[in-house]
Amino acid sequence: MNLLFRVLSSVTLLPIVIYLLWQGGTGFSCLIMISFAVSLFEYTSIVMNQHRGWQMVSVLFSLIAVLLIFYATSLVAIVVLIGSLCFFICVYFTLNPDLPQCLFERVCVLLLGFFYIGSGFLSIYLLRTGGTLFGQSDLGLQFIFLLMLATFSNDTFAYFVGKWFGKNPLSKKLSAKKTWEGFFGGALFTLATPLAVKALLASMGVMLLGSISIRDIFFIAIPIIFLAPLGDLIESRIKRFYGFKDSGRILPGHGGLLDRVDALLVTSLWVAAYVFFLRAV
Amino acid sequence: MNLLFRVLSSVTLLPIVIYLLWQGGTGFSCLIMISFAVSLFEYTSIVMNQHRGWQMVSVLFSLIAVLLIFYATSLVAIVVLIGSLCFFICVYFTLNPDLPQCLFERVCVLLLGFFYIGSGFLSIYLLRTGGTLFGQSDLGLQFIFLLMLATFSNDTFAYFVGKWFGKNPLSKKLSAKKTWEGFFGGALFTLATPLAVKALLASMGVMLLGSISIRDIFFIAIPIIFLAPLGDLIESRIKRFYGFKDSGRILPGHGGLLDRVDALLVTSLWVAAYVFFLRAV
Repeated sequence: MNLLFRVLSSVTLLPIVIYLLWQGGTGFSCLIMISFAVSLFEYTSIVMNQHRGWQMVSVLFSLIAVLLIFYATSLVAIVVLIGSLCFFICVYFTLNPDLPQCLFERVCVLLLGFFYIGSGFLSIYLLRTGGTLFGQSDLGLQFIFLLMLATFSNDTFAYFVGKWFGKNPLSKKLSAKKTWEGFFGGALFTLATPLAVKALLASMGVMLLGSISIRDIFFIAIPIIFLAPLGDLIESRIKRFYGFKDSGRILPGHGGLLDRVDALLVTSLWVAAYVFFLRAV
Repeated sequence: MNLLFRVLSSVTLLPIVIYLLWQGGTGFSCLIMISFAVSLFEYTSIVMNQHRGWQMVSVLFSLIAVLLIFYATSLVAIVVLIGSLCFFICVYFTLNPDLPQCLFERVCVLLLGFFYIGSGFLSIYLLRTGGTLFGQSDLGLQFIFLLMLATFSNDTFAYFVGKWFGKNPLSKKLSAKKTWEGFFGGALFTLATPLAVKALLASMGVMLLGSISIRDIFFIAIPIIFLAPLGDLIESRIKRFYGFKDSGRILPGHGGLLDRVDALLVTSLWVAAYVFFLRAV
């Protein structure tokens, strides 16, 4: 039943996401903005134990930050934005001296989530809009497609291979469910899926991964084999700290949005670093 | 005795700082780097109760961050840097499941300091190096001079006016020492000092504040009247959370470097925002 829900909501939502990604422009910017706001809302619910006021503050700040970055992509704007955010947090606690130390520390945990989730989604945004940087407008899009193929293959095949063949636990301390079989199953398909899709599309004459070389696929997929499960474990760890199981209920059958994108937030950083700084080397 | 030390170390160090600011280039970059590292070291000592390991990690990250920003001033570099920093913190706690929640929250408080202190010093760096942005190479330098005049006047005159004439406490809850007399004395000189220095220098034919209008002085100094004491209170508040009095002992008679720059870290953000985004409006 849970699995059926999962598949159904994927089938409905995935085409919308792909369409917005493809189109770029305002629709895509809105997708990034809403995804960031919803993920940060879920993260705030976990850390602040569903406190409505903090949920609203987080969403507000995520929207302000994203809009500022969309319209003022200068380094000074980012520095002033980050500095002001930290300043507002500190002023709030300075002018309310009765607030307890533990609340201050919780808000700093929120700040971590703000930066962690924000930089993940921004990496995808920068890949998509960095077209002029590459001198080839759809190269970023191709890499986002590769990023998603590799990350979701890892996630999905680790789950099913682990479910069907899993015997040896990866580490009982880190995760009750993850197995070595699942890890290697995920690893195999993280590499195999993009390679197969590239070959298939090329044979059909579709150049969706046309500018991406086999070398690119290896350089991107091999770190993802480790980064994707880590992204997943990180989210579980934070949920365990604060006594939660799912991050939310926005996607029927999927838990929260954060549960879906936890791996993507980390792997997108790697792909952005590779595409912008390492690929030409 | 304390006051004598204070004056002596100011007289020795201030010319060095002014010289490096004036020269720009590598010497100035090193000044920013060392100031950030020392301030973050002191902040870490406060939050982590002098734990040597965390002090070293903080200094290391401050140096890496500053070097990366000096050499790769692109938005993507910043996003990947921030994302990686958050990722490393989370991975550390994920792979060490025995570490307690309170340590995780303390490290998030460190992260706040990293961003707070970093964005303050980076604002000064961007003002100094943003010459090409202004099309006038020493305009940033002039604004840094104004920033320092206004901020240190506020600090110094609030201290002395408060000491000599202070009767009515500003707020017993926020600070035991600050008085309304000190606040207004500081406010007066925050405006008066830059205006007087500009007039004096102009009459001597020195154009050190030549490109800065009276309007600029008002727009910059009036917010500083409020921001500088807030910067000071914020640092006291965080020290009080963690049971410290001074931030360190690096400057003889001055407590720590952080005690000296606490106001500057906030006022520099305002000056950067004003110069880069509001001045032309």
